[in-house]
Amino acid sequence: MLDYPLLEAVAAVDREGSFEGAARALHLTPSAVSQRVKLLEERVGTPLVVRGRPCAATPAGRHLCRHVEQVGLLERDLHGLLPAAGADAGPSRPAVLRVAINADSLATWFPGAMARFAAGEDTLLDVALDDEAHTAEWLHTGQVLAAVAARAKPSPGCRSVPLGGLRYLATASPAFVARHFAGGVDAASLARAPTLQLSRKDELQRRWLRKVCRKDVEPPTHGLPTTQAFLEASLAGVAWCLNPEALARPHLAAGRLVELVRGTALDVPLHWHHARLAPAAVERLTRAVVAEARRQLRPR
Amino acid sequence: MLDYPLLEAVAAVDREGSFEGAARALHLTPSAVSQRVKLLEERVGTPLVVRGRPCAATPAGRHLCRHVEQVGLLERDLHGLLPAAGADAGPSRPAVLRVAINADSLATWFPGAMARFAAGEDTLLDVALDDEAHTAEWLHTGQVLAAVAARAKPSPGCRSVPLGGLRYLATASPAFVARHFAGGVDAASLARAPTLQLSRKDELQRRWLRKVCRKDVEPPTHGLPTTQAFLEASLAGVAWCLNPEALARPHLAAGRLVELVRGTALDVPLHWHHARLAPAAVERLTRAVVAEARRQLRPR
Repeated sequence: MLDYPLLEAVAAVDREGSFEGAARALHLTPSAVSQRVKLLEERVGTPLVVRGRPCAATPAGRHLCRHVEQVGLLERDLHGLLPAAGADAGPSRPAVLRVAINADSLATWFPGAMARFAAGEDTLLDVALDDEAHTAEWLHTGQVLAAVAARAKPSPGCRSVPLGGLRYLATASPAFVARHFAGGVDAASLARAPTLQLSRKDELQRRWLRKVCRKDVEPPTHGLPTTQAFLEASLAGVAWCLNPEALARPHLAAGRLVELVRGTALDVPLHWHHARLAPAAVERLTRAVVAEARRQLRPR
Repeated sequence: MLDYPLLEAVAAVDREGSFEGAARALHLTPSAVSQRVKLLEERVGTPLVVRGRPCAATPAGRHLCRHVEQVGLLERDLHGLLPAAGADAGPSRPAVLRVAINADSLATWFPGAMARFAAGEDTLLDVALDDEAHTAEWLHTGQVLAAVAARAKPSPGCRSVPLGGLRYLATASPAFVARHFAGGVDAASLARAPTLQLSRKDELQRRWLRKVCRKDVEPPTHGLPTTQAFLEASLAGVAWCLNPEALARPHLAAGRLVELVRGTALDVPLHWHHARLAPAAVERLTRAVVAEARRQLRPR
């Protein structure tokens, strides 16, 4: 078997971002943590941790971290069946389940799923953000055990469940519309009015523009990295953008936002992907996610 | 002089994340973009772009991207003085000003500063997020032209302006408090009640725990990467956490959140750092940032 105290040291440095943080979490001294990491690096014959600010696992180290997390989750399942099995191990830290979510899900329906899950559970969640076109890669490369992704097709060894569509509306403030679209919303005015992009991977505004203009349009684009900042920037008249309908609705009703072109809502179908051979906590999270998505997303 | 059409190709690939995206932005074919990047890589003798999903500049390429952005901003200043100078260059793309901001500023007062700036300006903002203890490094390494940072001391060649304090309150839902703190809020109950961490760099909850418990406490910790998700998770009873007072206030007033320990607010002083020899747009953004911070942050 592997030498788990050494693996735990690497995982803790990666999770906490420093040798000091790992030492605190493991109730060791920083030099003991450092010795364990070095020893494992010598045995494996490759660096496992990049000593930076923060410290992080190397690609080889990440495989070990993922393994430690999965073993931790499996130990919890065992503990449920055989409570005495962990009796002499002292109070164990709760297991951590890493998942990859798109920003707009985290800003809308996912907290409800997290609340359902956390209510009956002491497993912790560690949420990573990425574009829904890229979250499935996190699962495929083993960085997470489950993901919310746009694509339906599961990776080998994984299962995919349809969640429904996240609806977006292209919106702007009334003052922004008056300034930029007084002569109508068309390819010419859309090429001049500033819009937003969440990250380089974010194709949503571009997709809406192609749907409405039937050609590629390249408007001036601010980069804003959060869903909430999109909403604030559209309310403040900085730009137009696609906002999740759930966030835009109260502002549309109050007249603080208007829809650029009626009848051009964009539905992004989402799917829940998870490893087939996953710890029981993943099954419980799946039930919470599917229940909450059914309540908040649009059926297909 | 440098061969700017080649540099522009590298900057566009980095900004758009793909050769196709760069081609669209520059009104070229993807193969023309690829040839320009290759030619510059041969001349410089080092790779400038990592061909991945998304594509991104190498460290060497990033220096060139930053240079192109700064030249773009300086060209705009020149154009303001000598409108005819750019007459034969065709319709130029608006300049982009990259800044690094902490998540809680973006979720509270920064959109107001952005709205002030954008009202009289067609310069675009590209906002990167990082912990306020690390944003100054982005400026120091030339990845951004300005940053909101915790530290007061400017890097060489930079200027720093105090903005005031962002106030945080440790809050949780009434049901969470009843479940976890029925016997009082002390080091023992705080070591068991789940809390949140925005990223590995986020020390805020830990700092509050040290202030209140007068020692290190290691509670079970979910990882949630956005300010808004912190608020939602505390409202849903998943965890306690430090929320910016501005976001927590309406929920405290309505009884949906309660303060864990009265009189334990934490003020994080913030500073605006920018390069001394910066284009005029940085000066204009500085004025907008200082004005909005004065309105929304706490004077020292």
